[in-house]
Amino acid sequence: MSAPIAHGGGITAAAAAFGGRPEDWLDLSTGINPCPVALPDIPARVWHRLPDRHLVDAARRAARDYYGSGEILPLPVPGTQSVIQLLPRLMAGSSVAAMTDSRVAVVSPTYGEYTRAFAAAGFAVDAVGDIAAIGEEHRLAVVVNPNNPDGRAWPAKMLIALHDRMKSQNGLLVVDEAFGDADPALSLAARAEELSNLVIFRSFGKFFGLAGLRLGFAIAEGDILDRFEEWLGPWSVSGPALSLADSLLRQDVSAIRRRIDERSSGLHGVLTGAGLRIAGGTTLFTVVADSRASDIYTHLCRHHILVRKFDYARDWLRFGLAPDPAADRRLGEALQRFER
Amino acid sequence: MSAPIAHGGGITAAAAAFGGRPEDWLDLSTGINPCPVALPDIPARVWHRLPDRHLVDAARRAARDYYGSGEILPLPVPGTQSVIQLLPRLMAGSSVAAMTDSRVAVVSPTYGEYTRAFAAAGFAVDAVGDIAAIGEEHRLAVVVNPNNPDGRAWPAKMLIALHDRMKSQNGLLVVDEAFGDADPALSLAARAEELSNLVIFRSFGKFFGLAGLRLGFAIAEGDILDRFEEWLGPWSVSGPALSLADSLLRQDVSAIRRRIDERSSGLHGVLTGAGLRIAGGTTLFTVVADSRASDIYTHLCRHHILVRKFDYARDWLRFGLAPDPAADRRLGEALQRFER
Repeated sequence: MSAPIAHGGGITAAAAAFGGRPEDWLDLSTGINPCPVALPDIPARVWHRLPDRHLVDAARRAARDYYGSGEILPLPVPGTQSVIQLLPRLMAGSSVAAMTDSRVAVVSPTYGEYTRAFAAAGFAVDAVGDIAAIGEEHRLAVVVNPNNPDGRAWPAKMLIALHDRMKSQNGLLVVDEAFGDADPALSLAARAEELSNLVIFRSFGKFFGLAGLRLGFAIAEGDILDRFEEWLGPWSVSGPALSLADSLLRQDVSAIRRRIDERSSGLHGVLTGAGLRIAGGTTLFTVVADSRASDIYTHLCRHHILVRKFDYARDWLRFGLAPDPAADRRLGEALQRFER
Repeated sequence: MSAPIAHGGGITAAAAAFGGRPEDWLDLSTGINPCPVALPDIPARVWHRLPDRHLVDAARRAARDYYGSGEILPLPVPGTQSVIQLLPRLMAGSSVAAMTDSRVAVVSPTYGEYTRAFAAAGFAVDAVGDIAAIGEEHRLAVVVNPNNPDGRAWPAKMLIALHDRMKSQNGLLVVDEAFGDADPALSLAARAEELSNLVIFRSFGKFFGLAGLRLGFAIAEGDILDRFEEWLGPWSVSGPALSLADSLLRQDVSAIRRRIDERSSGLHGVLTGAGLRIAGGTTLFTVVADSRASDIYTHLCRHHILVRKFDYARDWLRFGLAPDPAADRRLGEALQRFER
């Protein structure tokens, strides 16, 4: 087994170490919208029955319209994590064939599960610093756009050029747009029809504030989606998740976007007000760079505020959005008490 | 790709072929309790946040107490389907190692996904007629107990003897207790602690009537559960599913069991009243054997009633429970109109 994963969302462990009731902690350790939308009604039959084709198709059409993927009906998956774990199989002729010594490039630092999944499957993974460093030796490249945690964003044009290069060497480009809802212009979804050898992942729970649902979408040519569907097996996504996707992806999301922007401004004000240097981020999280990041992390834990630290970048801290101005103030007051 | 799966739950396709609105059909094509329990409240944070360790642990403890698995905390999975698909990996040293030519035995006929998963992974699968036919050449054996669709049940003692035999040849026994809630005495869960090389699958949605949730549990020694957990990745089960498991597995289920028994008696009465011969089943479904099964299937579809037919046993039809006596009567009247 590989090492345990240290993701955000571990408020229980933090409370066990630093005291307080988990529900009294301010959890800023994730990149999830802290102002969840009101839940639309979920019909009783959605809970009761196996998710029928009708429900799946409705969610797929709603996702197609929302992501603008043209003729491609995005495939609902139980969290993008589930398809990240299937990527190694895409590279093998069959699930049991011995894999070749092909190399994988992951534009890094980024979400750690890509490297973990490929390494666990026996691939050599190169953490490359930028897309220019992806080479001829790479049969698959992963770009998270915009990137987590540093917020770097590559314009669609650059990624299309990268895709063409990967395709010419019979390689696959994976673009993870988990934080793509805030800036639809970055998305390659509208180009997916014409670009084979491209796989796009979208996250549903982050932007809508419904991470407990476990729902994401994969956008790719039919053959790739068919294989994901086959490997995930029937009914991989819950009925409530499909039902909520059908409702929420058809709503006007401008109010959600405005609220996230407002919360992001609030967070920026608190962080810069505390004299912290912002190193990057998206509207759903902000990364600060500080040589005393580790001490600030512990200080905030003592104030029952959890943020995200990184083993590979010890001077970074990632702050997720606080749910309201009162929580911004709570963070600001805790940061003011940090003694330099 | 293997052939499309023809499971129950395809009411949309049936309605498209035979007319009527899907919601007006009587769906008897699954083995799911048609009288779902009242949904307990799901806290807002369960929808909003990633499923935290606390939530997972609470569901695991509730499952341990409900299944009586002693020190073993059952692993929640997004439907047992998800772990069926992982079984081939359990047999390989690693996910990419070329697998040996070991053979798998599936006591058949049974739920088709076992054979599908192993065959897709390149294993030779022997459909054996009974557990006595499992041989020394089998490194893994699958028994669904009680079996779907014929309802055959093997006493725990027989399966423990089978387990000991499998273990002596370094093999693994998989017991799928998806329909085990009605008769807890059949379950091996209480013995799982002492029996290594044993994997038990339990289904949550069938008995509680919540198949849309996508939730099951795996019970096995720690090393096997650790591997499943690693392969499924973090947050594989939705927050609402974990929350409902924690609530419902702690409730007194005797009223659910009584209701299922009552519905099962109603179904038996209708089927025998129509002169059909009952060939087997569990309290959640009944299989009839009739040389005109295919005609009865089509006749029922014309009355907008969907049951389950089987490619491999053309004289069988499986009837799931109707939700109430009125639906029993509807089925009975349709069957009376079938002209022999």
